Amino acid sequence: MLTLDKIYHARYVLKQVIRETDVIHAPHINPESDIYLKTENLQITGSFKVRGAYYKMSQLTDEEKARGVIACSAGNHAQGVALSAQKNGIPAVICLPDGAPISKVEATKSYGANVCLVKGVYDDAYAEALRQRDEMGYTFVHPFDDENVIAGQGTIGLELLEQIPEMDAVIIPVGGGGLISGVAYAIKSLNPNIKVYGVQASGAPSMFNSIHDHKIECLESVATIADGIAVKEPGENTFRYVSDYVDDIVTVTDDEISAAILALMEKQKLVTEGAGAVSVAAAMFNKVPVKGKKVVCLLSGGNIDVTILSRVIKRGLLMTGRTCSLNIELIDKPGQLLGVSGIIAEHGGNVISIHHERANEGSAVNGCYLRIVLETRNYNHIEEIKNALKENGFKIVNE
Amino acid sequence: MLTLDKIYHARYVLKQVIRETDVIHAPHINPESDIYLKTENLQITGSFKVRGAYYKMSQLTDEEKARGVIACSAGNHAQGVALSAQKNGIPAVICLPDGAPISKVEATKSYGANVCLVKGVYDDAYAEALRQRDEMGYTFVHPFDDENVIAGQGTIGLELLEQIPEMDAVIIPVGGGGLISGVAYAIKSLNPNIKVYGVQASGAPSMFNSIHDHKIECLESVATIADGIAVKEPGENTFRYVSDYVDDIVTVTDDEISAAILALMEKQKLVTEGAGAVSVAAAMFNKVPVKGKKVVCLLSGGNIDVTILSRVIKRGLLMTGRTCSLNIELIDKPGQLLGVSGIIAEHGGNVISIHHERANEGSAVNGCYLRIVLETRNYNHIEEIKNALKENGFKIVNE
Repeated sequence: MLTLDKIYHARYVLKQVIRETDVIHAPHINPESDIYLKTENLQITGSFKVRGAYYKMSQLTDEEKARGVIACSAGNHAQGVALSAQKNGIPAVICLPDGAPISKVEATKSYGANVCLVKGVYDDAYAEALRQRDEMGYTFVHPFDDENVIAGQGTIGLELLEQIPEMDAVIIPVGGGGLISGVAYAIKSLNPNIKVYGVQASGAPSMFNSIHDHKIECLESVATIADGIAVKEPGENTFRYVSDYVDDIVTVTDDEISAAILALMEKQKLVTEGAGAVSVAAAMFNKVPVKGKKVVCLLSGGNIDVTILSRVIKRGLLMTGRTCSLNIELIDKPGQLLGVSGIIAEHGGNVISIHHERANEGSAVNGCYLRIVLETRNYNHIEEIKNALKENGFKIVNE
Repeated sequence: MLTLDKIYHARYVLKQVIRETDVIHAPHINPESDIYLKTENLQITGSFKVRGAYYKMSQLTDEEKARGVIACSAGNHAQGVALSAQKNGIPAVICLPDGAPISKVEATKSYGANVCLVKGVYDDAYAEALRQRDEMGYTFVHPFDDENVIAGQGTIGLELLEQIPEMDAVIIPVGGGGLISGVAYAIKSLNPNIKVYGVQASGAPSMFNSIHDHKIECLESVATIADGIAVKEPGENTFRYVSDYVDDIVTVTDDEISAAILALMEKQKLVTEGAGAVSVAAAMFNKVPVKGKKVVCLLSGGNIDVTILSRVIKRGLLMTGRTCSLNIELIDKPGQLLGVSGIIAEHGGNVISIHHERANEGSAVNGCYLRIVLETRNYNHIEEIKNALKENGFKIVNE
């Protein structure tokens, strides 16, 4: 049974281990509301997961500690368990699917855990973890459906009540529901007037569906940039806590999540992973009632691969008119490239790449194609450059 | 005259306006030392500059306040002055060269300042600012060479002494020298055992040269990714304070700065601009003696354009083997592309782009080129893919 006592106890235990992460004012996220960010992306291991994992392990008996723990995760939970095991002096095995990103495997190993790569997908690694638990007597550390894990995550709620006591609402990412269960329980127990909203990715709406249908439902597949909350089925405990303590659950799309990641980088200088940014996406795009309210968005984690970050930025730049690519049909005679280059330079476009090609099946025999990628200031700037090209007789195709 | 009293007074004045930014442990920056980050990139306006600008303006007479202030900057100082003027109810004019990035112009305007775009470069905008000062009676807010501005920046030193009293050293970015003058003065006055190091970009080593030659020197030009500290000449006051209170000044290259920006994003989830990351670059690449020491790196700001950030990431990925581009010479017959694709897929390479071209002047008449850009795990992975291609008879050119 979750109790406030247990969450206070978790806070006491965690005090020497975790950071009490800062709350930062973010006035530019949504001009109609007063947004604050709880920066668990700046937590040790790069996510809140270490809170629950550490508290869970601290409560094992000496015998259980000596036998060790096992967990299954390719992400933040793995690092949380590995670090917590190291700090508690407990042996730990982490099962991962063998396709897990090298960077995550290395991060988990760096905290001293034994990594067990299992052929197949997450479900195979999970089955293997349970098999080893039964064979070896390890304690399985569940990523979310465990009262002690939930109590650990709930310490964020206690911190928020002190850091920003006058808040009207908190917006929280939801995967399996461990984080929101703990935080909602702590906040509603102490101040039921504060609204608690959950956010899922529209490509993995397991808790969203379950809550709206009033029963636990399992998704067949999940697909979202927010891999940290791509969970097929809520836990039994977490489903119950969310049903009882959370005011509403909403979803956001991958494009909205990308826009939130980019806004957090540009305006707040914070790196968040997809799962970590869904709360901000919900506030930016008014998915929950934030207008005129003081609202805390919980940034749950920052462990995003830079290659994905690079793609998010690229997409964000395209979507905001700061990059554009133009296909220009030219007559194949000398001086044409010079003409185009001159017009672009004159209007302040910055060329990133040029690709010049003859004999495209769609163009005339003496025609050729120029594909130019430009850095631009905004959509108006793109229009200005396009119009200048057109006025000078160049034909822009495939807009 | 700078005094500790003045810095304490600045701290009192600034208390209601600025954030006391967090100090975050960064164990992965340099494995041989204990590194902490003072996160002024998370300061309001995205940099420390607001401290000096606000304190300077708060100390003007009522008559001076009524006449207003003027400043010249395309960067963090502009935003610091604009916000401070708004909060003090003082009219402000900011002169910028007309080529300044739209994003910076918009940010400055958003704080309510009058932006005056001046044809030409920074020096032209500076001359225009002085002309308007003389004509209109504005107070000119110098970006660094002013005792009150320096006192404002010095408040960071007082915070550090409380936040991390047992530090052995602080590493601080240096442009004109206002930040390091204030922080070094505060720290050395209270605890002379703490070392204070300054870092400049090797493409703009004005203070570095001046200090090592024991006289103020002016650079003819500057060129660095760290535009926030690309200053041609130190101030008279700042040169004196750095001479008296700073233990050493070093430089870092643009590649080292890029590596620091990427490491801060990946490992610490923090976005920094080039100038903001030079302190971390110095610690990462052992430019100052950090081994075995507890060292604070001051992250001075986070206002980096995402297009530049995107380039830094791209370069960082190439440099760490997580992207590679291969030029493969093919015989122009059906099935070749299939063969290459199959080998790459089998070895876990992820294709980003493919460019297939015939009739390159260097290849045989029946030959053609394939240029493939791949996401890879590391250099070993790249070698593995290359070897597999070679073993299957494909020729990789222009390595």
